[in-house]
Amino acid sequence: MKIAIVGVGAMGSRFALMLKHSSNEVTLIDGWQSNVEAIKAHGLQADFNGKHVQSKMPIYALDEVDQLQDYQPDLIIAFTKSNQLDEAFQKAQSLISPQTYVLCLLNGMGHEEILEKYVSKEHLILGITMWTAGLAGPGQATLFGNGNVELQNFAAVDKDFALEVEQVFAAAGLNPKYSDNVSYSIWRKACVNGTLNTLCSILDCNIGELGQTKESEALLKTIIAEFAAVAAHEGIDLDQAEVFEHVTETFTADIADHYPSMYQDLIKNHRNTEIDFINGAVWRRGQEYGIATPYCALITQLIHAKEQLLNK
Amino acid sequence: MKIAIVGVGAMGSRFALMLKHSSNEVTLIDGWQSNVEAIKAHGLQADFNGKHVQSKMPIYALDEVDQLQDYQPDLIIAFTKSNQLDEAFQKAQSLISPQTYVLCLLNGMGHEEILEKYVSKEHLILGITMWTAGLAGPGQATLFGNGNVELQNFAAVDKDFALEVEQVFAAAGLNPKYSDNVSYSIWRKACVNGTLNTLCSILDCNIGELGQTKESEALLKTIIAEFAAVAAHEGIDLDQAEVFEHVTETFTADIADHYPSMYQDLIKNHRNTEIDFINGAVWRRGQEYGIATPYCALITQLIHAKEQLLNK
Repeated sequence: MKIAIVGVGAMGSRFALMLKHSSNEVTLIDGWQSNVEAIKAHGLQADFNGKHVQSKMPIYALDEVDQLQDYQPDLIIAFTKSNQLDEAFQKAQSLISPQTYVLCLLNGMGHEEILEKYVSKEHLILGITMWTAGLAGPGQATLFGNGNVELQNFAAVDKDFALEVEQVFAAAGLNPKYSDNVSYSIWRKACVNGTLNTLCSILDCNIGELGQTKESEALLKTIIAEFAAVAAHEGIDLDQAEVFEHVTETFTADIADHYPSMYQDLIKNHRNTEIDFINGAVWRRGQEYGIATPYCALITQLIHAKEQLLNK
Repeated sequence: MKIAIVGVGAMGSRFALMLKHSSNEVTLIDGWQSNVEAIKAHGLQADFNGKHVQSKMPIYALDEVDQLQDYQPDLIIAFTKSNQLDEAFQKAQSLISPQTYVLCLLNGMGHEEILEKYVSKEHLILGITMWTAGLAGPGQATLFGNGNVELQNFAAVDKDFALEVEQVFAAAGLNPKYSDNVSYSIWRKACVNGTLNTLCSILDCNIGELGQTKESEALLKTIIAEFAAVAAHEGIDLDQAEVFEHVTETFTADIADHYPSMYQDLIKNHRNTEIDFINGAVWRRGQEYGIATPYCALITQLIHAKEQLLNK
């Protein structure tokens, strides 16, 4: 399959390497200049479960997309930061023909609203992934452990191409599953990000430490209830008790001593976060639907205030 | 006047020194052993507007109150930390006869509920003070600037003694004013503490930095609205626009580069805070009255979680 990956950070690098190794034609597009230069010079490198891998792939900066005039990918996978998705697809939109499909596996809600500006509902595939990935430096990924992918055509019409993607991903070892209710999975995963990522960032603690505070139970339950109220208005009946259990399992799991990705972005690297696609999206949709989501509102405001304080 | 001061921290030291210097009989009672020992050895010392002052006064640890069997103060002033008030008055209650009055100038709401366990409503005087004070070490206060005191008998019956206190405070230079609506002033001041102290502590910033975030206006207005809704149920009609102006004036005032006292307690010294008497009191009363106060609830939970994370 001819696959373009827009956004070659940690997760983009994982998918690029795994898809390339299973003989797909992978082209990379990224907005971070040092990353583009490193990959142009040395290919994409990774510590892949303890083994060094290195793979040459064509890579273009977002500003170089016009050099790709005759290139027509079958599939574009979006792996930018959420808050860079719109700008990236604005610059990469010449790659999208009526035949192109776009797959988005980013955490949270609202990416489809952005992507629908560039591709039809029928050619949009949404999903989630439980793969993890880290970046040691420009062009150098750190890829450990196992994961999977759940995906579904956004418009429930012709799912043939999405099933083809499933096959290609299966051949690449990505453990895909075509889902009949990926929206449920997206909301369920957003509850994890909307509790652990935000609270650890605000409280400056890791996942296990959060779990040890007396307040964590009430905090999680209130936030999950707000997510569920808004999801219900979209026809998704979140099982709040199950989601609560799912989140609290992390408190004593291997990842208990981890600082979530939002913490890494915000507190460690002073970067803006994807809060507008997590709690911010719940707040925005809640306002639209007339549903009160004060915890999501305050959390969104606090994270944005912290972005301004740290990122100046 | 025979005055006992329970809690000889920064503010207790200020009142002790100023009342002693105007010839009152001041007795000190405190729970911090090093403080008690330092004052026993050297008297109470202070940098008082640049001048070194030192004054011998009898001081007792809270556990030594039984040594004071024949001592009957006319007035006890409560200057403990809010969350230590109950325990301190439990230990000091033998000082309270039917003639004794108790004055409380602590920030926030709910101290009267504790003090009513030890003194009748009619002998309780509530108020606020705009004096500031710092502590350089045990027995050593740092007292700069100017301030004032507003006070009122809690039960609107016999106010003769409270007016006597006003005279004694006036002679001590404490700029007192007998108020006909001290509850309004208490709520208005609580709005300052419930916004600046909490948000600077959660966001790890000073007052001026908070004011520069885009979110500060919405945050302040939402929190003040919750305070006003609960105050209204108690017959206090807070002028929200005026209170908002009053809080935001600090963003560009001399104190803009200050970190509020809650920040000092929590973030710098890893101590528990008075949150249960500020936003926590609004939340608790809101639940009692059937008024939603989600911002106060979440802020209280976050501060308590941070206390546990930092104070372990």
